[in-house]
Amino acid sequence: MSNARLIFDSPERNADLYYATRFTAPDDILFLERQGKRYLILSDLEYERGRKEAKGVRIFSLAEWQEKAKRARQEPNSIGVIATLLTAFKIKKITVPRSTAFYLVDGLRKKSFKVESGTHPFCPERIFKTPQEKKWMVEAQRMTFRSFRVAEDILRQSKIRRGLLYWKGKVLTSERVRFEMEKFLLAQNFQPVFSAIVAGGRQACDPHCIGSGPLRPHQAIIIDCFPRSARTRFYGDATRTFCKGKAPPELKKQYAAVQFAQEMAIAKIKAGINGKTIHRAIQKHFERSGFPTKKIGGKKQGFIHGTGHGIGLEIHEEPTRISGVNFKLKKGHVVTVEPGLYYYKTGGVRLEDIVYVTGRGCEVLANYPKRLEIP
Amino acid sequence: MSNARLIFDSPERNADLYYATRFTAPDDILFLERQGKRYLILSDLEYERGRKEAKGVRIFSLAEWQEKAKRARQEPNSIGVIATLLTAFKIKKITVPRSTAFYLVDGLRKKSFKVESGTHPFCPERIFKTPQEKKWMVEAQRMTFRSFRVAEDILRQSKIRRGLLYWKGKVLTSERVRFEMEKFLLAQNFQPVFSAIVAGGRQACDPHCIGSGPLRPHQAIIIDCFPRSARTRFYGDATRTFCKGKAPPELKKQYAAVQFAQEMAIAKIKAGINGKTIHRAIQKHFERSGFPTKKIGGKKQGFIHGTGHGIGLEIHEEPTRISGVNFKLKKGHVVTVEPGLYYYKTGGVRLEDIVYVTGRGCEVLANYPKRLEIP
Repeated sequence: MSNARLIFDSPERNADLYYATRFTAPDDILFLERQGKRYLILSDLEYERGRKEAKGVRIFSLAEWQEKAKRARQEPNSIGVIATLLTAFKIKKITVPRSTAFYLVDGLRKKSFKVESGTHPFCPERIFKTPQEKKWMVEAQRMTFRSFRVAEDILRQSKIRRGLLYWKGKVLTSERVRFEMEKFLLAQNFQPVFSAIVAGGRQACDPHCIGSGPLRPHQAIIIDCFPRSARTRFYGDATRTFCKGKAPPELKKQYAAVQFAQEMAIAKIKAGINGKTIHRAIQKHFERSGFPTKKIGGKKQGFIHGTGHGIGLEIHEEPTRISGVNFKLKKGHVVTVEPGLYYYKTGGVRLEDIVYVTGRGCEVLANYPKRLEIP
Repeated sequence: MSNARLIFDSPERNADLYYATRFTAPDDILFLERQGKRYLILSDLEYERGRKEAKGVRIFSLAEWQEKAKRARQEPNSIGVIATLLTAFKIKKITVPRSTAFYLVDGLRKKSFKVESGTHPFCPERIFKTPQEKKWMVEAQRMTFRSFRVAEDILRQSKIRRGLLYWKGKVLTSERVRFEMEKFLLAQNFQPVFSAIVAGGRQACDPHCIGSGPLRPHQAIIIDCFPRSARTRFYGDATRTFCKGKAPPELKKQYAAVQFAQEMAIAKIKAGINGKTIHRAIQKHFERSGFPTKKIGGKKQGFIHGTGHGIGLEIHEEPTRISGVNFKLKKGHVVTVEPGLYYYKTGGVRLEDIVYVTGRGCEVLANYPKRLEIP
């Protein structure tokens, strides 16, 4: 009788499963950890690849365990196979990720297994980035910024004509800039898992609107790109706000307020500081600078989202999030710092970098200029 | 007191949630259906976009329900907000998708709510494609095949030199073909959610190996691409096997066996037929044609996977799968038909199309030639 840790999920969805095995597959696979030993149960389709690619795990054949389940008069489905496996290993109690499907947990409990929720994340050490992981994240963030260079060059090369931008003879759209960035990233073996945001004017006031249609001069264009390295599976995440042509004075002031807030936050971040302290400082700064957060014309405007989120093998991971919630940043955390201001009148402004938290402060993982106006 | 249906998940992961609302967001959102009325509870970040994009649902503000949760002395987390919402609606019992996280279900049960598993999929009607959905799937599959044209043209233009392929002056690799296909798809507003498989020779014998390094002449190259339309969110999925140059006689025979099997399966598919019947017929055909499925040199070779799977808003969905399992195909199902043969000696061959099941037979959703040799 002993405790054990079990994951039944797809490594595409479950970052802990990938972290524990360095193996990925589109479908659900079964992972078991017991007395320091790790096992993966794979179908014929994944078996050989698992033996080559998975790290530090012994590979079992799902087909064989389905046969064993049948012999043990269990259904050869996931619950039956897990029950057979646990019985063979004399395991009565398992810890699983809190995201585990409840039909699976209900099924195992009916068979008298004890099922408890593990920590979140299930592999808590994954939130503290090792030097190697930090290096992978620097690589991912550098590549993310190289795609910003692609976008900025397009804006720079564009011509302003009759309130529109023209690039290579065509009206420049959000879609075109996004395509050129993602094409560049694909060629570098980075995956645009989520579409890059290229949103101009009022569109940028919905922070998750990815943007569409013609881009316009003399107004803010938010570009937010968060690609994943296909090789390391770590994400980059960055935002810059550009304005092709001359920015209106109000937009310049708004940009300056966001830049000040972002750099103040980065200056404050260090191990031990409360995320809420940082978020509140930004809120206070915006209010004092004449950029309130409130409903205007029935729509919430101003600083309408959190300051940042943890990032790594997931785009949003622990420590989630730097916002009005109490929690302490620790050495080795990697978080985004991305204050923004959104007004339907002037448009949206957001600036985002990723930092690695140290005992004395934090390190920005890669750099890119913060320039609003593109001539 | 009344029953209700609830989903708490991200529409990016949960196709039923997208299906029910036509709204997508990266983070978890809350959906409630009661007495034919539908509600989405969205954070400030998604609220305005939800009001514009979500179909047939009333939008509630998460911030307001968090306040109500606090006033009702509930924690303002997901469990507390759901409990507050259910209490306000006088709901005691909810049906949720079976994939729902068990920590959430445990938490609600502790608060005396009854939580039961719904059907799988949660919106069962989504498996029976409407004429509009079928049209979207035809569009997706046509675009998938247009990316095969890109790949085939590259192979056709390539020159064979010293056992390698050269295209535009460079050694042609799996990565390059994949990039050119995905670049084409991105420009058409299709997302390469999963990387296209471009796998030559022995690599193709692991059906989920995406392939890497130089492609070679006179051997099989499996190309399997399954992009998603960003506009409709429906997937295409197709596989062709090519050979640049002259195919060895053994490979030609293997290809002919797979082509016969695939076309036989398509000819058999109609409403009412058992998936197992089709799968067994293919297995029998392969055995009779001298292509057994067995371990050779310790590795399982031959026809080592299922015949097909349901597809739609998910790449693998119900009816999953056409294999050794008993289940009846029904009118309106959309499934892939993709037999394959894999031998380390000759390489892998797979051919895949998508069909729409009708009362009398099935319709192939889009067409592309089946030609092994590319001169």
